[in-house]
Amino acid sequence: MSIGYLGPNGSYSHGATLKYKAEKDEIIEYDTITNVIKALENNEINKCIVPIENAIYGSVLDTMDAILEYKDIYIIDEVIVDINHILMSKQKDCQIARIYSHPQALAQCKKYLLENYDSVETIPVSSTSYAAKLAAKESGTACICNIACKDIYNLEVISDKIQEIKKNQTKFIVLSKEKNKRETKKTSLIFSTKDEPGALYKILGLFSLADINLTKIESRPAKTKLGDYMFFVDIDGDEKEERVEKAFSMIKDFCDEFRIIGSY
Amino acid sequence: MSIGYLGPNGSYSHGATLKYKAEKDEIIEYDTITNVIKALENNEINKCIVPIENAIYGSVLDTMDAILEYKDIYIIDEVIVDINHILMSKQKDCQIARIYSHPQALAQCKKYLLENYDSVETIPVSSTSYAAKLAAKESGTACICNIACKDIYNLEVISDKIQEIKKNQTKFIVLSKEKNKRETKKTSLIFSTKDEPGALYKILGLFSLADINLTKIESRPAKTKLGDYMFFVDIDGDEKEERVEKAFSMIKDFCDEFRIIGSY
Repeated sequence: MSIGYLGPNGSYSHGATLKYKAEKDEIIEYDTITNVIKALENNEINKCIVPIENAIYGSVLDTMDAILEYKDIYIIDEVIVDINHILMSKQKDCQIARIYSHPQALAQCKKYLLENYDSVETIPVSSTSYAAKLAAKESGTACICNIACKDIYNLEVISDKIQEIKKNQTKFIVLSKEKNKRETKKTSLIFSTKDEPGALYKILGLFSLADINLTKIESRPAKTKLGDYMFFVDIDGDEKEERVEKAFSMIKDFCDEFRIIGSY
Repeated sequence: MSIGYLGPNGSYSHGATLKYKAEKDEIIEYDTITNVIKALENNEINKCIVPIENAIYGSVLDTMDAILEYKDIYIIDEVIVDINHILMSKQKDCQIARIYSHPQALAQCKKYLLENYDSVETIPVSSTSYAAKLAAKESGTACICNIACKDIYNLEVISDKIQEIKKNQTKFIVLSKEKNKRETKKTSLIFSTKDEPGALYKILGLFSLADINLTKIESRPAKTKLGDYMFFVDIDGDEKEERVEKAFSMIKDFCDEFRIIGSY
């Protein structure tokens, strides 16, 4: 089994992949989230692990947009990872002119950066570990990344736990082209409502009447015109349960598009 | 009256500001959206104009997060701007090694870039017009920006309308520390639901029973823990209308937080 993830080594995605993988699984790094998911779509790998949502900055839009685009990939599992951002540099006491990190990490540490490095340039790069790789090469620069990068790239810690909230977590999902066969507890779906007043209210009502608990609801533009949305919803329950199947079959009548992205 | 916006000249924000401003208004540019809104918060300007939502890539998170943070700023108007992204360079026929633009514009043109410049590095910068400024200085680079930048920065057009959908628009909002006094048609609000099953369903039900049409619903992380959300909702109706006031007073009972960000 081969599993793709956003590299290089030391990224949070790498950590999530190590947490998830079985002993014999081969893991393969890619340079962007879009390229990880594209590799799955093109059958270069069997599975991939990508971040979908962070407690501070919210949804990872590249992942959501790839799920919207490729209609034959499914979520088969999730991995929750504690996220603790650390400011590191080649030498601890040098003047910092530039700070590298992934845009999500920069956003999660925005307050710290404004308070401590307001006039320092922040440079968004493709991953936190790639930021570490750059900071390890260039004097006078720092990176925001995972503690795992300290030893891999030989860096020194300037400041620990610099994100906005201390209990910071990211949810990663495992994607595959084959649906889950095991019994599961949670289902993710995407739908767009028909252009009728109260369509979303009716859909939420059907979930409620079937005693199905919604654990997440997020909207993304449908990419047609301003004001058209697709909803990403997580529910408690497996898509093979009778009450879930029945509710879905009624809900579909209020939707233009309706797609189950997997039970896990 | 002074109005702040994301500069430099030639940005879409600049275009929206020129469309909105009265003849005597003074306009002042800032280098990031966060700094535009901070300037309003610090009373350096009377109003500001910032992007809130694009038809392709969705919400502008820096704007949403600033609205969440500063509780004394209000939306007093909106400006819809057609967005047509153009790839430009200093010389039309040179080899391109790097493409600069704002992250939103890069995301809106992702398909075009993958098809035509897959191996070219894309560099996110603070605004589309700042990208134009950089491309005007450096040979072998290009930028994605507004046609207004062509003459301002003396650039040549390589490719026109490169965004994912042709009818691409961005909604800008006008923010002020004083609420609107005029009669209006639309209200924006933010709320977080109590942690009870069906709380969102009940809230949408109250809107529906009061014949209040929801034109937008978006969620953002509440920044407490994974799975806690704040909802950004737009409705048809002025907050001073009796039916709206009544519905709001009932809806508040199902919310931990409830804040009207303005009628306009």
